[in-house]
Amino acid sequence: MAIVDPIHQLQFSIEIVATLSFALSGLIAAARKKLDPVGLCMVSGVAAFGGGTLRDILLDRRPFFWIENSYWLWLLLGLVIVAMLLMRGRHLQLTERAIQIPDALGLGLFTALGTQIALEHGLPGIAAVLMGVVTAVFGGVLRDLFCNELPKAFSDHQPYAVFAFLGGGTLVIMNALGVADSIGLIAAFGITALLRVLALLRGWRVPAWRE
Amino acid sequence: MAIVDPIHQLQFSIEIVATLSFALSGLIAAARKKLDPVGLCMVSGVAAFGGGTLRDILLDRRPFFWIENSYWLWLLLGLVIVAMLLMRGRHLQLTERAIQIPDALGLGLFTALGTQIALEHGLPGIAAVLMGVVTAVFGGVLRDLFCNELPKAFSDHQPYAVFAFLGGGTLVIMNALGVADSIGLIAAFGITALLRVLALLRGWRVPAWRE
Amino acid sequence: MAIVDPIHQLQFSIEIVATLSFALSGLIAAARKKLDPVGLCMVSGVAAFGGGTLRDILLDRRPFFWIENSYWLWLLLGLVIVAMLLMRGRHLQLTERAIQIPDALGLGLFTALGTQIALEHGLPGIAAVLMGVVTAVFGGVLRDLFCNELPKAFSDHQPYAVFAFLGGGTLVIMNALGVADSIGLIAAFGITALLRVLALLRGWRVPAWRE
Repeated sequence: MAIVDPIHQLQFSIEIVATLSFALSGLIAAARKKLDPVGLCMVSGVAAFGGGTLRDILLDRRPFFWIENSYWLWLLLGLVIVAMLLMRGRHLQLTERAIQIPDALGLGLFTALGTQIALEHGLPGIAAVLMGVVTAVFGGVLRDLFCNELPKAFSDHQPYAVFAFLGGGTLVIMNALGVADSIGLIAAFGITALLRVLALLRGWRVPAWRE
Repeated sequence: MAIVDPIHQLQFSIEIVATLSFALSGLIAAARKKLDPVGLCMVSGVAAFGGGTLRDILLDRRPFFWIENSYWLWLLLGLVIVAMLLMRGRHLQLTERAIQIPDALGLGLFTALGTQIALEHGLPGIAAVLMGVVTAVFGGVLRDLFCNELPKAFSDHQPYAVFAFLGGGTLVIMNALGVADSIGLIAAFGITALLRVLALLRGWRVPAWRE
Repeated sequence: MAIVDPIHQLQFSIEIVATLSFALSGLIAAARKKLDPVGLCMVSGVAAFGGGTLRDILLDRRPFFWIENSYWLWLLLGLVIVAMLLMRGRHLQLTERAIQIPDALGLGLFTALGTQIALEHGLPGIAAVLMGVVTAVFGGVLRDLFCNELPKAFSDHQPYAVFAFLGGGTLVIMNALGVADSIGLIAAFGITALLRVLALLRGWRVPAWRE
C-alpha cells in the first residue's frame, strides 16, 4: 500500500523542475557559444549534475545521482533534441527568464540536500555549508568553464551563492540545536529560495570590492 | 612459455600509437598557445591520460593507468624533449594531419575499453556509453580547458564524440544480447574508428542548431 | 608535558604563512578580474587548497586538509573580508611582491609533503614527483582556470614547477637510497625554495620552444 507523503512528493516535483531548469541554463549557455550537439548535451548535463557530482567526488560518495537514476540521461538527451528542433535564437532570452523561479527553487533544494548529506558524512559545520554551496552552484560554474567564460556565480554581482551560504548555515545551526532534520531542510530550502526570488524581484546586488 | 596472442598484441600496439597521438595533440595545442616546457608536458599528459583518469575518478577506480605503468610518464617527458629539440612551427600542421588516423584508432579503442570497464563496474547502459565517451574524448576537452580554449569536441561541428556514442552503444547492445566481450569490443572499436576515418575522408559535419 | 619540537613548529609556521600567501594570490587574481565577494572567497580557497585537494582525489585520500582543519575556512573568510575592507587597487602589486618569498617557501614545503605522501601511498618515483608538483602548483592552475586565464605556471616562462620537479626528485632519490624521511623532506624543501628564490632574484627564465 502506497503511503501518501506530500512532502516527498513536493520535493520530487521540485527536483525535476529544478534539474530541468539547470539543464536549460546549460543549453542556453552552449547555444550562445554556438556549440555543436555534443557540446549542447555535455554542457546541459554538466549544468544539471555537475554540482552534485563534484560534491560526491569530494565526499567520496557513490553512486552518483545520474548513475543511480540513469533515465535522467535519456531525459536530458530528449531535452536537447527537442530544443534543437523547436528552440530558436529569439527564445533564448525568454527561456532564461522562464527558468529564474525554478532555478531559485533548485538553489534552495540542492543547498539544503547538499548540506544535509555533508552533515551525515560527519563534516564540520562550515565545510557542510560549503558542500551545500558546491552542490547548488558548481554545476553552473563548471558549465561556464566548459564554455570558456568567467563563472557567472563568481562575477555577476548578483546574490546567488550568498543565499546558499545563508540557507546552509541555517540548516547547520538548526542541526546543532537538535531541530528535526525535516524542519531544518525546509527552513534552509525556504530561506535560500525566498531570498533568491526577492533578489530577482528587487534587483539586489552584492557589494563590490572598492578599487 | 609465452602464448602468442595476436589480438592483445594488436590492442597493445594501437594503445601505444593512439596514446602518443593524443599526447601530440596536447603538445600541438600547447605549442600554439606558446606555453613553456612545463605547460607542454602537462598539457600533453592531460591530453593523453585525462580521459581515462576522469573515468577512473568517476568510477572510483584505482590505480590509474599512468601510475600502474609509470614508464609512460618517462615516455611523455622524452616526447616533449624531442619535440622541443626537433619540432618547429612549420611542423605543427603536418603533425596534426599525421596523427588523424592514429587518433581515430584511439577514439575507437578508448571508447570500447572505457565502455567495457563501466559495464564491468555495473553501470547501466547509457551511463556506460557516457563513460566510454569520457574516456575517449575528455582528454582533449581537458587539454582545451588548460589552454583556455573552447573544447574542440564540443564546438568544431565535426563528428567525433558522436561516433564514440555509437560505438559504445553497439558494445552495450551486444553485451545485453549475450555476445562475447571480445566480439563486442572489436565491433565497438571498428565502428567508431571506421566512421571517424570516413568522416575525415568525406568531410562530414554534424548538424548545427539552427538559430 | 609538551615536548618542544622545533622542526614541526617551523613546518607549521611555514605552512600557515605559505597557505595565506597562496590564498592571497587567489585574492589578487580574483580582484583583477573584478569578481564579486563569492568569487573572491572561492578563488582564494581554490588557490590555497586546490593543489592538495586534487592530489588527495587522485590518491583517493580523505579527509582533505581543509575538512580536517575546518578553522582554515573561517580564516580564509576572514582574510577576504579584511581584504575587501582594507585592500585597494594600488595595493595589489605590492601584495604580489610581498608574497613572493612565502610563496617560494610554500612551493618547497608542499612539493616535499606532497611527494612524501605519494611515496607513502606506494606510488612509483616519477608519479610521486608528479604528485608533489600537483600539490604545490595546481592550486595556482585551478585559480587561473576559474579566472578564465591561461595557467601562469604553464605559460609565464618563469621556472616554478620545474623546481618542484627537482625538489621532488631529490626526495625520491634520497628515499631510494634509504636516507631518513626527515632529511629527505628538508632537502627537497630547501632545494625547491632556494632555487625559486634565486630565480626571483636573478630573473631566470625557462627555455622556450623555438618556433
